[in-house]
Amino acid sequence: MRTEISELGEFALIDRLTDTIETTHPTTIMGAGDDAAVLSFAEDNLTLLTTDLLLEGVDFDLSYFPLMHLGYKAVTRGVSDILAMNGLPTALTLSLGVSSKLSVEDLEDLYSGVRHACGELGCDIVGGDTTASVNGLTINVSVVGTVPRDRITYRSGARENDLVFITGDLGAAYLGLHLLERERRALADVDNPQPQFDGYEYLLVRQLRPRARRDIVDALAAEGIVPTSMIDLSDGLASDLLQICRSSEVGTRIYLDRLPIARETHNLAAELNLDPVVAALNGGDDHELLFTVPLEMQERVTALGLGIEMIGYITPASGGAALITPDGEQIPLQAQGFRSVVSD
Amino acid sequence: MRTEISELGEFALIDRLTDTIETTHPTTIMGAGDDAAVLSFAEDNLTLLTTDLLLEGVDFDLSYFPLMHLGYKAVTRGVSDILAMNGLPTALTLSLGVSSKLSVEDLEDLYSGVRHACGELGCDIVGGDTTASVNGLTINVSVVGTVPRDRITYRSGARENDLVFITGDLGAAYLGLHLLERERRALADVDNPQPQFDGYEYLLVRQLRPRARRDIVDALAAEGIVPTSMIDLSDGLASDLLQICRSSEVGTRIYLDRLPIARETHNLAAELNLDPVVAALNGGDDHELLFTVPLEMQERVTALGLGIEMIGYITPASGGAALITPDGEQIPLQAQGFRSVVSD
Repeated sequence: MRTEISELGEFALIDRLTDTIETTHPTTIMGAGDDAAVLSFAEDNLTLLTTDLLLEGVDFDLSYFPLMHLGYKAVTRGVSDILAMNGLPTALTLSLGVSSKLSVEDLEDLYSGVRHACGELGCDIVGGDTTASVNGLTINVSVVGTVPRDRITYRSGARENDLVFITGDLGAAYLGLHLLERERRALADVDNPQPQFDGYEYLLVRQLRPRARRDIVDALAAEGIVPTSMIDLSDGLASDLLQICRSSEVGTRIYLDRLPIARETHNLAAELNLDPVVAALNGGDDHELLFTVPLEMQERVTALGLGIEMIGYITPASGGAALITPDGEQIPLQAQGFRSVVSD
Repeated sequence: MRTEISELGEFALIDRLTDTIETTHPTTIMGAGDDAAVLSFAEDNLTLLTTDLLLEGVDFDLSYFPLMHLGYKAVTRGVSDILAMNGLPTALTLSLGVSSKLSVEDLEDLYSGVRHACGELGCDIVGGDTTASVNGLTINVSVVGTVPRDRITYRSGARENDLVFITGDLGAAYLGLHLLERERRALADVDNPQPQFDGYEYLLVRQLRPRARRDIVDALAAEGIVPTSMIDLSDGLASDLLQICRSSEVGTRIYLDRLPIARETHNLAAELNLDPVVAALNGGDDHELLFTVPLEMQERVTALGLGIEMIGYITPASGGAALITPDGEQIPLQAQGFRSVVSD
């Protein structure tokens, strides 16, 4: 018997592979199913562990992805999962499968991006594994973090009437990828290609060098705010918010006209005949944080500034998950993750 | 400027990339440079972290490597690094880059091997990342473990006159690989190939399904023995013992006629015109433990049984590292790691 992976679909594949995995170790508080695993080694703090794999040709294209940025982004992707548990990163390991088409200087560029991101985020590089690859470049980042026991935030804690907040803006990374792909195609046969990115630099930064939102987790801690639930926006707002709903057994309503979309995202979407709202909902790769807090905390969260926006609220599960348009229409949210396969 | 990776060599590459990395986090006790990173989150115990990348076409060949065994071996490789710090594994994450030539059933086989090894070793599977791969199968295993502070064993603690012990026997995994490669070549053009492994099953098991030596770490703990240094035998006895010498700033003498080599290893080496001692010294992939203890602990270690063998002793650094032949000749030990690139 042979079942094709494509036939099953990626969500179902992961469920099938991991569904019956039980954790038995007394130190394992939470295994798969949230942004990071939760381990208990100390009295006051919990230890967090997450891993992310990036493959050439799937997650990045080296023809337009500078290696320094790629190193930076690999760290962002790993650390964002720790932040989404309301924790801070402490240590990171880097596995590299290196094809011979890369030079030593290329790898130094990659490492310099990794170091820069780790420096910004207060995370040590503590080891790794470097192997020759006969295929493309392979990068795996594993990150360990910590969070005080009374501050840990799972996907499962959202409650009816909680408010839904997101940081930053949505869809820019996705449009940045479209822009890079357009220029690559346009310049495929050109000597000394000069891609045209004028006016869209912001979108490139969001795609090539997204920043993990440690500032948000620090600010929440400084103000003594603990979200009821939180997730890293990696697969797209729709998909990630549905994960919160599924884990918390709740529904949600979000307002279309509250979705924060940057001017550059609107502009390029118009130029490319794309719907910016679709990019915002399903674009993915934003690496912003989505979280919920009780209604009565609205003002305290808004007072944080930092570009945090309230986009909706939590309903009972029976209400389902929907987007409300300005004229009051309700459109069911559907998961259409941007990445080919979904990760924790 | 472009420096080829092959030009620099793999050891030098890793040194160049990681040499200037400093760790600054107060919880980071030890970063790169030992079998696992050492983190301090609790009063009594230290937390260990290690990562290992396995790539199709480099680390394994799916034409003869059953996926169930591959899953098992990936766990062995990761967990061995935790054991080599005298720690025990608690949690493991599994990243998979999956090519479409694999079916869902293939992945279930892989996972069943991972589960089986984790079950034997008392380690929970706590998460992962599954991604489509346009190239071959990619596996990354990250393992977290713990060790009491007073039992942690680094590579750097070997002292003059300490004795050198190893577990198991050497070179069998390497000969097992030769056997598999020989049959693959011989049967490349044959329908319904029937490889001939009679009498060499032991070598296949050592290559395809090596067992991580948790039993050794448990026995050392039960008897209250703390080695002065320890390392996982992954790159070959010569290379790994030289790591101990370098980290501990000592030299060593090991006796050729004390190297434990299985009868099957001798037999196949004779058949293939290979030197079994070279296989034992440089074969790699054994995943046994090499450790040192003070001279006065010899009897206590020997009394453990478990196939632990004393193969030599530690000298001052000025003595260098050498193999002593039965007629008293001294041959300098040289690192000739079997794996194409060296990992932690």
